[in-house]
Amino acid sequence: MMETAVILSTGDELTTGKVIDTNSAFIADRLFSIGVKVAAVLKVADDPKRLLWALREARALGDLIIGTGGLGPTADDLTTEMVANFLDRNLIVNEQVAADLRRRFEVRSIPWTANNLKQARFPEGAAIIANPVGTAPGFHAILGNGKNLFWLSGVPQEMTAMFNETVLPWIVAQQDRAAQILACTFKIYGLSESNLDDLVKPIDLGNHAKLSFRAHYPDLTLRLTVSGEAVQKQFAELCDRIRAVLSPYIYAEGDLTMEEVVGRLLFEKQQTLALAESCTGGLISQRITRIAGSSAYYYGGAVTYSNDAKIKFLGVTAATLEKHGAVSQQTALEMSQGIRERTGASIGLSVTGVAGPSGGSQQKPIGTIWISIAQENRHEARSFYFHGERERIILGTSQAALNWLRQTLLN
Amino acid sequence: MMETAVILSTGDELTTGKVIDTNSAFIADRLFSIGVKVAAVLKVADDPKRLLWALREARALGDLIIGTGGLGPTADDLTTEMVANFLDRNLIVNEQVAADLRRRFEVRSIPWTANNLKQARFPEGAAIIANPVGTAPGFHAILGNGKNLFWLSGVPQEMTAMFNETVLPWIVAQQDRAAQILACTFKIYGLSESNLDDLVKPIDLGNHAKLSFRAHYPDLTLRLTVSGEAVQKQFAELCDRIRAVLSPYIYAEGDLTMEEVVGRLLFEKQQTLALAESCTGGLISQRITRIAGSSAYYYGGAVTYSNDAKIKFLGVTAATLEKHGAVSQQTALEMSQGIRERTGASIGLSVTGVAGPSGGSQQKPIGTIWISIAQENRHEARSFYFHGERERIILGTSQAALNWLRQTLLN
Repeated sequence: MMETAVILSTGDELTTGKVIDTNSAFIADRLFSIGVKVAAVLKVADDPKRLLWALREARALGDLIIGTGGLGPTADDLTTEMVANFLDRNLIVNEQVAADLRRRFEVRSIPWTANNLKQARFPEGAAIIANPVGTAPGFHAILGNGKNLFWLSGVPQEMTAMFNETVLPWIVAQQDRAAQILACTFKIYGLSESNLDDLVKPIDLGNHAKLSFRAHYPDLTLRLTVSGEAVQKQFAELCDRIRAVLSPYIYAEGDLTMEEVVGRLLFEKQQTLALAESCTGGLISQRITRIAGSSAYYYGGAVTYSNDAKIKFLGVTAATLEKHGAVSQQTALEMSQGIRERTGASIGLSVTGVAGPSGGSQQKPIGTIWISIAQENRHEARSFYFHGERERIILGTSQAALNWLRQTLLN
Repeated sequence: MMETAVILSTGDELTTGKVIDTNSAFIADRLFSIGVKVAAVLKVADDPKRLLWALREARALGDLIIGTGGLGPTADDLTTEMVANFLDRNLIVNEQVAADLRRRFEVRSIPWTANNLKQARFPEGAAIIANPVGTAPGFHAILGNGKNLFWLSGVPQEMTAMFNETVLPWIVAQQDRAAQILACTFKIYGLSESNLDDLVKPIDLGNHAKLSFRAHYPDLTLRLTVSGEAVQKQFAELCDRIRAVLSPYIYAEGDLTMEEVVGRLLFEKQQTLALAESCTGGLISQRITRIAGSSAYYYGGAVTYSNDAKIKFLGVTAATLEKHGAVSQQTALEMSQGIRERTGASIGLSVTGVAGPSGGSQQKPIGTIWISIAQENRHEARSFYFHGERERIILGTSQAALNWLRQTLLN
């Protein structure tokens, strides 16, 4: 039974502050979701003395040591040697890994040098952890007293794949014979982190389920993990409970962004989109086009930052701007209609607002936003209000616009 | 003389993976720049046993312990109590801090509760570290044997201010009487990290200067720090050496972004800008408008993702698109000219290219980009090529376009 883990992150780039360590947060989040506590995260340089100190402390503090980094071919990649030293074992070449490495080099016509064989050496008796996205495999060593050590690549993408495919299933299987992990991610719109917390608190999770959430504005993600034996039924029931409580706020199940959800809907419904952005300055367009293949449904748009641009590109009337102002229901409506008519897209979406830090008034304080959607049979504008700094207002506006577009496409 | 530091980051949010710890990287970078080595970074939960373990290990490993987090008013904020415990000292209310706290609450009309007094309690004999941007001050305790402990707020903005204003000057003063820290940041365009490393390696830094760099694509930053006694002359000379070696690549001195530099130049030169973006999908526009006050020089632009949009919004001819294709010198030229003429802006900038992952050909592989600038007396297009994934190509293109615009404005 694995109860307490220690995470080791190694590399000079971490102790000199050149790189922010995201690996340990990823691993800690996944361990939390299956009920394993992290006693400590230790970061040390590629230095033999420090590495040995960290390994000794980790063994003293936890049942499970999960380390990352230092598996590369260069001289400063000391990890495998130090772990072998720590375990008092020899380093042995794994012929299978060596052959795989040679083949990779051949295929890419990269000359093979002796130091590359370093990546095929492992502490005697360790099991190899496949690296599905890179050259350096990791390893798993049993330490005795029921303690285990896993060492993974420090490249986040490689670490993620190795952890999810090998380490996590192994831990869960140890926790419970015939065990499995079932997980679902819910993407949330329209709730703050504390509102979300309040809503899910009453859900009885029992002993096998965990809920974790992460807020990275404007994104809010809820993750349900159920682990144990024969937990399919419980998992399905908990998913249903969450859906029942949160359905108005869930915009996706799975790791999708809002722009991916909107893109898929536009594609499925064979609709085309044109944008007229003012205060968001091109952010919505940029989010839409971040998705490969978006040219299938995105026509393009206008960033009409000045009044003159609203008149010339969208046909907003000078009278409307004069009477109602650039941030108004009337201007938003003319913008969405204008971009739709001028482009022939099936949907025209417009945004105009006061992002600050200047430009606010008592009537239209900073954070006042109008969004409008024009379709063949429907033409509407809605007002929104966002608190905070300029950047936050712009981000929040882009998310609100995409979410409204999503709802429109679903109806 | 402070030679070796240990950084402690505390908080349940770190050991459950809810938050990525950026504080330790910031502190490690600053310590590196003044020649202090970080022996280890230790992250533990708000748990008495773990905190005491971390404090003991930190004292054993380093001369200098710098901790963050757990100074708040709630029950799970245990740090100050645990440090007092570790030091075998009493907790004493600092009346000055208590009075300041009460005043803050009064000014904001927030009811004062007893648990807030917790933030005014410190280990006996500790010096207070002012928190210029938040409520909870930190503290500095002398541990004996020439060892020192500093504890700061875990809120990044507060930690940064407390570290820069109090901790860093104290360490430098210890290193050298009458010492000072002089630092300069150079923002780099057009070099890879390893090219930059090669160029600055021959510069003789002596014993008092350090160079550190950080790459966060497309940004590359070089930082010179000189610390010691009477180092003004050396600092000035090293700045000049760096300028001599890197001048074609430095786009700013100081912590400015490329879009800030361009924005300032547009404003100073009283020029206005209009954009015609294809493959960057609005990113350049979004970067320009991220800067508050950009409406003074940014007219707006068109995101002409489709050929039809290039024709309708910019007046690119169907013949040009037919003959040369959307990604071509001719199309880029017609786009920049078109947006300039249609908006009356003094500068028209256009971008068209193949961002991938599909759409590449042998003649125009993924990563092929044309950028064009149209001014009253000048009209030019240049081709660029970017390696990598879609997102990287788009980011690189936006940086190249802004840098060319910067050079144009300087001439």
